[in-house]
Amino acid sequence: MLKDKHLRIGRNAILLAMADEHEQAELQSLLHEHGWKWCIGKVGSMDSQKIVAAIETAAKRNGVVDSTLYREMHALYHSVIEAVQGMTRGQVELGGLMRTVGLRFSVVRGNPYENVQEGDWIAVALYGTIGAPVRGLEHETIGLGINHI
Amino acid sequence: MLKDKHLRIGRNAILLAMADEHEQAELQSLLHEHGWKWCIGKVGSMDSQKIVAAIETAAKRNGVVDSTLYREMHALYHSVIEAVQGMTRGQVELGGLMRTVGLRFSVVRGNPYENVQEGDWIAVALYGTIGAPVRGLEHETIGLGINHI
Amino acid sequence: MLKDKHLRIGRNAILLAMADEHEQAELQSLLHEHGWKWCIGKVGSMDSQKIVAAIETAAKRNGVVDSTLYREMHALYHSVIEAVQGMTRGQVELGGLMRTVGLRFSVVRGNPYENVQEGDWIAVALYGTIGAPVRGLEHETIGLGINHI
Amino acid sequence: MLKDKHLRIGRNAILLAMADEHEQAELQSLLHEHGWKWCIGKVGSMDSQKIVAAIETAAKRNGVVDSTLYREMHALYHSVIEAVQGMTRGQVELGGLMRTVGLRFSVVRGNPYENVQEGDWIAVALYGTIGAPVRGLEHETIGLGINHI
Amino acid sequence: MLKDKHLRIGRNAILLAMADEHEQAELQSLLHEHGWKWCIGKVGSMDSQKIVAAIETAAKRNGVVDSTLYREMHALYHSVIEAVQGMTRGQVELGGLMRTVGLRFSVVRGNPYENVQEGDWIAVALYGTIGAPVRGLEHETIGLGINHI
Amino acid sequence: MLKDKHLRIGRNAILLAMADEHEQAELQSLLHEHGWKWCIGKVGSMDSQKIVAAIETAAKRNGVVDSTLYREMHALYHSVIEAVQGMTRGQVELGGLMRTVGLRFSVVRGNPYENVQEGDWIAVALYGTIGAPVRGLEHETIGLGINHI
Repeated sequence: MLKDKHLRIGRNAILLAMADEHEQAELQSLLHEHGWKWCIGKVGSMDSQKIVAAIETAAKRNGVVDSTLYREMHALYHSVIEAVQGMTRGQVELGGLMRTVGLRFSVVRGNPYENVQEGDWIAVALYGTIGAPVRGLEHETIGLGINHI
Repeated sequence: MLKDKHLRIGRNAILLAMADEHEQAELQSLLHEHGWKWCIGKVGSMDSQKIVAAIETAAKRNGVVDSTLYREMHALYHSVIEAVQGMTRGQVELGGLMRTVGLRFSVVRGNPYENVQEGDWIAVALYGTIGAPVRGLEHETIGLGINHI
Repeated sequence: MLKDKHLRIGRNAILLAMADEHEQAELQSLLHEHGWKWCIGKVGSMDSQKIVAAIETAAKRNGVVDSTLYREMHALYHSVIEAVQGMTRGQVELGGLMRTVGLRFSVVRGNPYENVQEGDWIAVALYGTIGAPVRGLEHETIGLGINHI
Repeated sequence: MLKDKHLRIGRNAILLAMADEHEQAELQSLLHEHGWKWCIGKVGSMDSQKIVAAIETAAKRNGVVDSTLYREMHALYHSVIEAVQGMTRGQVELGGLMRTVGLRFSVVRGNPYENVQEGDWIAVALYGTIGAPVRGLEHETIGLGINHI
Repeated sequence: MLKDKHLRIGRNAILLAMADEHEQAELQSLLHEHGWKWCIGKVGSMDSQKIVAAIETAAKRNGVVDSTLYREMHALYHSVIEAVQGMTRGQVELGGLMRTVGLRFSVVRGNPYENVQEGDWIAVALYGTIGAPVRGLEHETIGLGINHI
Repeated sequence: MLKDKHLRIGRNAILLAMADEHEQAELQSLLHEHGWKWCIGKVGSMDSQKIVAAIETAAKRNGVVDSTLYREMHALYHSVIEAVQGMTRGQVELGGLMRTVGLRFSVVRGNPYENVQEGDWIAVALYGTIGAPVRGLEHETIGLGINHI
């Protein structure tokens, strides 16, 4: 069973991606207290490869995943792709469909279940804008991917 | 251009769908103050049709959309479908792929842009769990769809 | 190379599906003159299986395909699925996404290429309305699938 | 409810995209008489971005949409993407799947419903050929997207 | 790095799903010798839910996964869905698109990498026929999904 | 009805793509004996266009298809795309999703049905690894597409 609301991994990932600095500090202090790992970052591009690369790099550099183990990179990768699917809603393509994104992202790692044997899970959240490559012609978008790791 | 953070329509929709009662009251008071419309609800099912129907019914009953105008129902429908695509990440199917969801949803309507001529937009947010039809075998999921109305 | 405009197989299929009785007579006389085969029909449903079945049955009963040969049924099937994908734009699902269709369809068979060795091709066209299961809450939709047979 | 056949917005868009010069003149005179807006154009490419850009540019230059309003560009964009999905049937990719298109397109704007309150709607139609990047190795394709604006 | 050919997890899963009894015995003796777990089974249906359920049930009953741990069921589930996507090629739907399948399946669990820290991985393979619900109107199909567990 | 196991076209294509040199010789001698055509090859890339091109070129050069007939190229093309869909499971994109493949492929042509009137069919099989553009961060993948020709 999932732990209570404050230790929901997806909820924390989304809130981190949408937070201002003050809210981030509060969330991070909660995650720190429970021994969870996380990172946050920003990326803007018409090229989906750059989105994937930016998130993977941030998660590796901040020690959220162990980049020498394929099983960890594989878990992260599928979380990223699911978050990108939520953000693009149907077709992963960005530039090929003449659209661009400006995103803040978070990666959170910990055990969101009561049972300690469930081990670590990983959540990737994206929040920002998607639209035409013209300033202002854009609306918000969100994506969340969760996987066991 | 989008208004500032507190009048982001997608952000408000997501926060409403994830909020507890206290947080909901705060968010609703803000939306009320700016003349925005909204509704919230819950739905759980293995049948995607029931998810779509529950959100459409709530939005009609609470006057978020005018159900006698197809253009309003069309705007709402595509927001719902985009939110469902984000929530299912790739294949809209639920029961056919042996999975079920337990969701809280919100629908928010207002103008999130500085320019009054942008008129009303509508956001549909979903937050909850997705998983096997067995209690506890589930993780969180989120979806957001935004459209002009 | 494709023959000239009046023997374009897709164009003829679309026009047949959109034609009134007078226009149909003209189109059919042209197809007859060139030894092409065709059929037309109507189907309305929230169930995509019924759409596929109605088109397959019409094509078999009218001798557009030989139902004892799998290669002919396979060619027809993939044309139908491609037409349905065009008509649904992204998710083949109808009732599961709370939408229904009212369609007129045509199946046309002949060689649209200058080179006689290209043999027969088959086109399936759909034209009608798609929308909520409420009269009037609908807009037009179209789909075309073409295959060698 | 939809107006009668001659004021069906999707039907007019498809016929415009498939018309020769003589037929175009007739269709345009009908649209003009009812105060509808429209444009037509041609585009050929292995790059889906160029298809989207060509249609958006034509619609802006011909005053079919107001490019200073995001709600109008958003309505147009989703019509274009739905038309492209119909034209590609399943995977939006062109060059990445080693195929190219030669298309004529139309964009039509007006109210196709009896109820004046339904306001303007927009239809994007594509008609042409899709196939290998080798002359003659191609068949017809069609796509139609419709949205409220 | 992947171990050599005879300990490729996907290759073994595919060969098991395609094997006759004699070949199965040989493959199983190899898997047994290396301490890998596996199961095989058959399922035929127009209903994708039954395909997913049959594989999950077989894997649980044969101890290939621990059904009390969500992380194991989650790993299995995504392998099944990926195998089903390969088998259906584009649209997961079966009966809704008027097609049925007759499949043999295998689930294999073990570490296919040189590095012991990569731990266990799981492969789901499907092999059989897909086609119209008429005997003989069918061709072969295959699907493979692999995940860390 | 399909011929017996040793003349299953998909099974032969998959086995050829997974075979070592000794196994290939056996399979090829069987195919030769029954007058079937085939080719095998290797391709590695982050660019899906190169995968499609490599298979088409091999099939043309080895006389498996007649490149002067569009109907043959069209049959081959759809088999390739279905195999690529099985190999990528959901999104055809490779480099855009930051992943690369190393594949062996086969194309097999012959009549797998008892009824001689079913004529020739074509199968395309892919087998290899998919993963991050880093050596070792990869797992196996498989794809199979079958079409009448």
